[in-house]
Order: sequence, then C-alpha cells, then structure tokens
Amino acid sequence: MPYRSPVNDFQFLLDHVVGFRAVQDTEKFAEATDETVSAILTEAGKLADEVIAPLQRVGDTDGAVLENGVVRASPGFREGYQAMAEGGWIGMSGDPEHGGMGLPFTLTASLNDMIGGACLAIGLNPILSQGQIEALEAHASDEMKDLYLPKLTSGEWTGTMNLTEPQAGSDVGALTTKAVPNGDGTYAITGQKIYISWGDHDMADNVCHLVLARLPDGAPGTKGISLFMVPKLIPDADGKPGQANDLRVVSLEEKMGLHGSPTCVMSFEGATGWLVGEEHAGMAAMFTMMNNARLNVGVQGVGVAEGAYQHALAYALDRKQGRTPLENGTGTIIDFADVRRMLVQMRAETYAARAIALACSTAIDMAGATGDKAWKARAAFLTPIAKSYGTDTGIKVAELGVQVHGGMGYVEETGAAQYYRDVRVTSIYEGTNGIQAMDLVARKMMDGGDTAFRILDEIETDAEAARESYGKLAEAVWSAAETLREATEWLVEQDLQDRFAGAVPFQSAFARVLGAHYHLRSAVAEGGDGPRRALAAFYIERLLPEHAALLEQARAGADGLYALAVEDLAV
Amino acid sequence: MPYRSPVNDFQFLLDHVVGFRAVQDTEKFAEATDETVSAILTEAGKLADEVIAPLQRVGDTDGAVLENGVVRASPGFREGYQAMAEGGWIGMSGDPEHGGMGLPFTLTASLNDMIGGACLAIGLNPILSQGQIEALEAHASDEMKDLYLPKLTSGEWTGTMNLTEPQAGSDVGALTTKAVPNGDGTYAITGQKIYISWGDHDMADNVCHLVLARLPDGAPGTKGISLFMVPKLIPDADGKPGQANDLRVVSLEEKMGLHGSPTCVMSFEGATGWLVGEEHAGMAAMFTMMNNARLNVGVQGVGVAEGAYQHALAYALDRKQGRTPLENGTGTIIDFADVRRMLVQMRAETYAARAIALACSTAIDMAGATGDKAWKARAAFLTPIAKSYGTDTGIKVAELGVQVHGGMGYVEETGAAQYYRDVRVTSIYEGTNGIQAMDLVARKMMDGGDTAFRILDEIETDAEAARESYGKLAEAVWSAAETLREATEWLVEQDLQDRFAGAVPFQSAFARVLGAHYHLRSAVAEGGDGPRRALAAFYIERLLPEHAALLEQARAGADGLYALAVEDLAV
Repeated sequence: MPYRSPVNDFQFLLDHVVGFRAVQDTEKFAEATDETVSAILTEAGKLADEVIAPLQRVGDTDGAVLENGVVRASPGFREGYQAMAEGGWIGMSGDPEHGGMGLPFTLTASLNDMIGGACLAIGLNPILSQGQIEALEAHASDEMKDLYLPKLTSGEWTGTMNLTEPQAGSDVGALTTKAVPNGDGTYAITGQKIYISWGDHDMADNVCHLVLARLPDGAPGTKGISLFMVPKLIPDADGKPGQANDLRVVSLEEKMGLHGSPTCVMSFEGATGWLVGEEHAGMAAMFTMMNNARLNVGVQGVGVAEGAYQHALAYALDRKQGRTPLENGTGTIIDFADVRRMLVQMRAETYAARAIALACSTAIDMAGATGDKAWKARAAFLTPIAKSYGTDTGIKVAELGVQVHGGMGYVEETGAAQYYRDVRVTSIYEGTNGIQAMDLVARKMMDGGDTAFRILDEIETDAEAARESYGKLAEAVWSAAETLREATEWLVEQDLQDRFAGAVPFQSAFARVLGAHYHLRSAVAEGGDGPRRALAAFYIERLLPEHAALLEQARAGADGLYALAVEDLAV
Repeated sequence: MPYRSPVNDFQFLLDHVVGFRAVQDTEKFAEATDETVSAILTEAGKLADEVIAPLQRVGDTDGAVLENGVVRASPGFREGYQAMAEGGWIGMSGDPEHGGMGLPFTLTASLNDMIGGACLAIGLNPILSQGQIEALEAHASDEMKDLYLPKLTSGEWTGTMNLTEPQAGSDVGALTTKAVPNGDGTYAITGQKIYISWGDHDMADNVCHLVLARLPDGAPGTKGISLFMVPKLIPDADGKPGQANDLRVVSLEEKMGLHGSPTCVMSFEGATGWLVGEEHAGMAAMFTMMNNARLNVGVQGVGVAEGAYQHALAYALDRKQGRTPLENGTGTIIDFADVRRMLVQMRAETYAARAIALACSTAIDMAGATGDKAWKARAAFLTPIAKSYGTDTGIKVAELGVQVHGGMGYVEETGAAQYYRDVRVTSIYEGTNGIQAMDLVARKMMDGGDTAFRILDEIETDAEAARESYGKLAEAVWSAAETLREATEWLVEQDLQDRFAGAVPFQSAFARVLGAHYHLRSAVAEGGDGPRRALAAFYIERLLPEHAALLEQARAGADGLYALAVEDLAV
C-alpha cells in the first residue's frame, strides 16, 4: 500500500496560499523559521511514510481487542506510537515550559494530516492528547500542569475526552455522570461514558481521562457541568503511575471501520478525579479541547482523502483494460476520460480541503499569537467549515477511490474499502457535520455576518487582482463569492429555524467557494500555465458551479421540511 | 430491524405515474389485471417483510462460507430462498410454457425492489436466475429450454453469470477462458472466472452457469466469444442433477459487505458445456441477460435506499436529544430541521429512483409486448439511467441513514452501517456507473438524441399542463428540461472523448430532471396539497437545482481532464 506524504503541497500552501508567513512573523512563533518549517514537514513526512503507513492494514485486519479488562492495540502500534512520542511529535505545539516545542498548531495539523493519511486509527491517539494538552494549558492549576503536561507532551501518557453518554450525544447537557467531593480536594466520579476513543491501550504508561460530570449542586443542562482529570493509574508522590483508579473498560464497540482505534464504553465507579478549572465551568474547558480537535478531525478527513487518492492513482496507473483512447497514453485505465475525471476530482477536492484546513489553523495560530479578536473570529468561523468539508471530502474521495478500483474496490484486499469504512466516522464524531453547520449559521454569525463578509471581501479582492491573467477562472470565483454574499446577507436576517434548515448546504457552499479561492491563489502563485492552474481550472469549472444549487437549498427555508407530516413520512 | 415494503407507493406509481396502464392494456399482459397487480404487490410485500427481512442481519454477521469446496449459505437463507421459489416468485415473468406466469417484468422489478430492501444478499440470487431465464428464452435451443427453463423458473435450480476474469472486467473481450469441442456436441470449458455471485450454495439442487468463453477459432475481442451453459451437476437422462461437472469454487472474496451473497472465484477445468445460441455470438446473448439485470441492480439500490430510509426514520422517531424546536413536536430528533432535511431527502430520492426504475421496466414490458422500436429505444435509453441513479441513490441514502444515526450509525449493532456497506457494490457490478454513462452518451445516442428528445418533450408537455395548478414547481421542471435539452443538443454534436468526459454528470443530470418529472406527476395525480405535493416540492426546490451544475460539468469537455499530465497527478 503506497503512501507518500504530500510534503510539496504543504510547503506550497504554507509559503504561498494560506498566509502562514504572518504566523512566522509573530514574536510567539519566531522560531518557526523557513528552515525549521521545511525540516519539520520533511521529517513528519518521513515518519508518516516509513513508520506509520505500514500499520494501516494490520490496524484493520487485527484491530484492538479487550482482553481481561485491558485493551491491547494492534500489532506494531505500540512501536509506531513510541516513534511518534520519541520524535517529540505529539507535543510539538505544546508549551516549552512543559517540554513542548511551542511550534505553530499549523505544523501539528500538517503532521496530523500526514499521519491520518498513513493510518487514521493510530493517528487519532495523539490528536486526543493534543486536545488535552491545550485544555490543561488553558484551565488547569499549575500543580496539575506540572504533573500532567510533561507526560502528555512527551507521549509517555495519553489523553482522552469523556463526553458522550447513551442519552447525551449531541446534547451534552443531558449527561448524568456524577462527581461527589471526597473532602480532600478530590472527587468521586461515577457514571458510564460511551464512544471513548483510545479509552485504554497498551502503547503508553498511563491514560488520562478528561471527564465531564455534574456536581451535586450542578444545575441541569450544560451550565452545571464540571471537568475532571481522572487518570487510569493515579500518579504517586513521584508523579509515576501508581494505584489503579476505580474505572474500567466495559466493552469495545464493533464499528464499520477504524478497527485499530479502540472505541470504549467506560465505567467510572467512584473513580478519583481532580477538578480542572472552576466548578460548573466544564463546558468552556471542554470546548477548548474540542475546538482544535474539530479542526484536527477535518484534517483526518483530508489525510484519508490523500491516502485514498494515491491508492486509486496507483491502481489506475497499473490496471490495463481495453484500448486506450489516447495517442500517447499510458495504456492503463487512467487514459479513460471518466477514470481521469474521478482522479482529478479526488486530487482537486483534497487540495482544496487541505488549503481550508491550513487557513483555519493559520487563523488559530494568529489568534494565539496576537490575541486579536478578528483572528479569533476568523478561526472560529472557519473551524466548522474545515471540519465538515475535510471530512465530507474524505468520504467523497474514498468513495471515488472505491469506484476507480471497480470490483477490486469492493473486496478488502486492495485497501480501497478500508479508507471508505474508516473515514465514515469523521463526519460524525467531534460534533456531526450537521452540528457544525448549526454552529456556523447561529453562533458564528452572531456578528451579523461580519466575519463571513471579511472573508468574502478577501476572496473578491484576490479574484479581481487575478482577473487579468486568469480571466474566466477569476471571474467565476468572484461571481460565486458574490452569490454567496447575497445568501449570507439573506441568512443573517432569518430566524434560527430557517437558518438551520439550510445550514448544511450553506456550509458546503461556503467550502466550495473557499476551495475555489485557494485554488485560484495557488494558480496565481505558481504563475503561468502549470499544473496548479490546471487543477484550479478543473475545480472552478466543474465543481464550483455546485455552489449555486447548494445556496438555493440553503435559502429554501424550514417550512418545506415540515410540510410532510411525520405520519406521511412513514411508508 | 423494521422493514415494511412500500406497497402503496408501488401501487400509486403503477396506477398514476409511470404509464403502466399501457402494459396492462396489451394483449401479451392481459392477465395483469388491476386485481392481479394489486394482489401481487401485496403478497410480494408480505414475503419481503415477513420472510426475507428477518434474514438481513444474519446474512451480514454469519455470511456464506466455503467448506470442503462447497458454499454454505447463511443460516435461514435456504428456507428464505425456498419460500421465494415455492411461491412462484422467481419465475413470475417467465414464459408460461415453461412454468412461468408470464407477468410483466415491472412486477418482477417491484418484487426485487422489496426483496432487496428486506435483504439485499439473498435478493441477488433470484435476479441472476431471472437474467438466465431471459437469456435462454431468447437464445437457447428448444431442447435446452425444455431441460433448464422449468427448473430455473420454479427455483429448483439457480443461475449465474460468468463473465469477468482477472484481466477482463469492463473489457469483457479480453477474456481467455477456452471452449474446445468435445466432438459430441458438447464443449470442454477451461478457465478461471472471478466475481461470480452465488457461484455456489446449498439453497437449491443445482447451479447453472452461463459462461463466456472463446472457441479455438474465435476472433480476439468480443466478436470471438461464445456463450455456454455449464451446470454444476450435469442433468441425467431424466433431467435430474447427476454427475458433478469439472468445475469448482476456488475461494470466496472477502468483501466490504453483502457477506450473505457468496462472491466466488470459479475454476472451470475442462467442464462440460453446451453452446447457447450461435458460435461467436455470445456477447449478444449475454447482453440479453445483462440488460434486465442492469435494471434489476438499479432496483436493488432503490430497495436498499428504502430499507435505510425506514431504518433511519424509526431511529429518528425514537431518539430523544435536546429540546425540540417545535411547539407540537414529537420530542425526538426528527423535530430538528437538519434531521428532517436528511429524512425528507432520503424519501424524495428513493421515490424518484423508484419511479425511474418502474418507468424503465414499463418501457421494457411495452417493448416486449409490442415489438415497437420506439419502446425498445426508450427502454434501452432509460436502463443506464435507472441503473446508475438507483444505485447512486442507494449509496447516498444509506450514507444519510448513517448520518441520521450519529454515532450509532458507525457501530454495527444498529444495522445502518450494513446498508452502507452492502449497497456500495451496486454502482460497480453489472457494469460500473461510469460504463453505464458511456453507454448512455454513445450507443444510446446513436439516434442523434431522438429518444432523449422524446422524453424531454413528454416532460415539458406534462409540466405545461401542470402549470396552472402547480405554478412554480411546474415551471422549474419545464426549465430544467429545457436546460437538459440544450445540453443534449450540444452533446450529440461532440466527439466521443468529449461526451465521455461529461458522461457521468450528464447521466446524473438526466436522472435529476426525470426524478422531478415523476414527482410532479405524482403531485398532479394526487391533486391538491397533499403529501406527494410536499415531497415533490422538496425534490424540485432543493434537489433539482443541482442539474445545472451537473450540466456545466457535462459540457466541460475532455481537454481539462488531460491538462494535468500523469506526472503532475503524482504527489
């Protein structure tokens, strides 16, 4: 199974397309020089290609198992994980005070993209630790930071997020896990959590659970939720993993894919927990953890798209079938127009999704470095789009990858099916793409659309500048941005129900236009008539037109959705 | 796992939408009276709901296995199959002379839709026999008909299609399986075939393989291919299964889904075969078998869409999460606009795909009953569209079904994932949807687009008639048909490469417009402002606009696909 991290694409996008130079120019990230960035991208690529990619198949065929109450990871995963940890990759963006390198999140996102393309299952683990590191940096006491952050940053210990309960999924506020003060500053945590990714494993020395629970005096709903650190093994006086905590893995979910990543049902049975942040302020702390995790999940989608694309390309370049329609063709199925169409679409969509994700992570870094409100708003606005488009792209591209393989795509031996099965969860976890869209059209538009309009201004300014050299392509992007502007103006005037009715198509349309924008920028940066222009032309001429249909749907309102009564939906 | 065959939808579509009355009015199908049709739909629904649907899960969890060279079907499958056979369902459209009921293929297609929605894996088996029955009726000698047709029609024996070889998939002409005359009128068949669905099993007494092979004097390519009947057990003098033939199942493919349907690698090792039709005329005979099979695969997609839809609806009506945004809501997640949007889309797409499939089967019946060229052309034109849109819809709806389930969609226990995995093969087998599209824009447009234009005339005439009562909806359908007409006019003027470059989007656009047409017809037939109008409005206002983007892509031509050199596609 070939996989090669697209280091050149990352380098090009960071240098020319997503505005990463601004991050490098900040004082906070002064150490992210061109040389450092380039070295990190190259070395991350090597790690993904040489150490992680070989784990892809075994993670599917020989998934994680629960044995005597303990989860055993797939063969080779421990070594792969250790390589990530020992290379310092997991805590690369962590605070240097606790062993991190303080590098931009954008580089971590790039790493996670490459690792996700190489093997999604193992790549999910460090993402959880990274989220936990951020949450602790922002909300934990100094004592807790000193104890946990060095271990998480080094990868000696790993982190998890414990939000979901059977009755509390998208509605986190419905959770019933209880936290009772023990009187010694600790709390007894009792309850069941589900869908806990990497809730246990044998790849590291400890597993640190961040658990949402309700104190006895906690209000109902999200306002009464607090966040607790609940380690699997309670650190002893020396900070070493000591006594086992009162928690256990009840079972592993049997999933469609991602078998290498254990999805645990966790039972906390009076487990000892330590409060993170203030009482009843758990949701805010959890959101810190979830925000970058959301982008990282989008990045997972992009990574799988890359893997599925490369896989299908290799197959198409190898498979001979019928007579080539080209005079100087390869003689393989890549010569056929429809196969070529699928492959170019796969590459164009993956590139666009990656650009959007990196633009989002750049905004996150700028917000972190400057504290500027506009950057914060931009990061917050782009996050649901990057999460949704990244994962939708992963799913779509993996589906096309199966199709390029023909019958070989449906049998498991080629691995095309695995991408399709593995990536399907990404549009669900960390908030379904529907939840992302609701966030986008409600919370992220409480500014009356200002952030959206600023982005649209930028797109139009770019398109105008490109008009002379890239006539039709630039005009198409400009027009699409204008159509999107009108839809946005309409949207912010609507009540929530009408916004929600069109939220998903609106989100997709925004991504389409952004994708076209970054493709156009890439063509301009490359100059002339090279391959990035050809890729941009494909995207803008063939895929961008979809934005109009999506925006019609976005503006169709809620009434039509409810015109069919529930009884009439039944067959 | 609830499943209820949508008998009312079938009845409504046949009575009011797809022109089935004309079939009933022919002499050939005079016995398909209203009462008979109604009884058949009702009884088929009962069979699917009560006997077949309970096999859905076990077919996935306890798939077919190869044991000591013999395939053992999933538990309960033999009984399920016997129920279909004993009810006379398998050969319902077969010639009464050989035990069939001579009923319209449209009723068989309806049955296959219901069975496919109940359990796709077992439903594939009779479809193969039905294709074989047709091929033999059209091409076999009387002696062969007398021997095989009664057994296939009764379901005592089952049929398979043996086309594909490792190097010969979409390019059937590359096959190397050999047929050598034995001197006694039989032939020795030697070669390996792959992807043979239901190539062996223990549900019936014999398995009859139709095998494509090349005679020693056969030309290269498709022109030198002949078709042979190669039974697993050679019928004895009494027509009973006798001596074992020299063929065997080498292995079963490990697939993403459809585990209940064994996909065999078959080895023919000098097996005794009997020529079907003329020497070197095997492709024509095989096409007879494939044509209706293609529609039946489209119908499989529709069936799975129905199953996935009902499943997601049941989940949405049960799952409580968060506060309902409605004053008189159900209190479950179906109240949320985005969940409602997904469910209504699932229902609207499924309905449209079913209408197109039934319109296609109606044309097939009319062609069979009248021999009329225009009906034949219409059937041939609609077949690739019905196959592709049916299967694309199955995949899309199953994907939405997973999404409606949230995290529960990704774990296997709910069954949502199974629909998603099972249906994925349908856009690949019986000719990938890309191959269907190439057929549509090349062979099916050798008439200069006449058949397409006749269909568009019909759509526009209907829309004009509906304009008074269904203003905007009718106008939208009319306009879309007009845009499609322009694209079709453009298409027939292009060379093959440019047609092929846009074939898949063109095919999808045609389906979109046809779907809107049948939705509008349904609204008109229902009259007033009922649920079918609401469903039509959803489809026409929210999904139909996509046709414009698809047609832009369809008209983008081939050059842009090859502007990126193969080297530039590599990362």
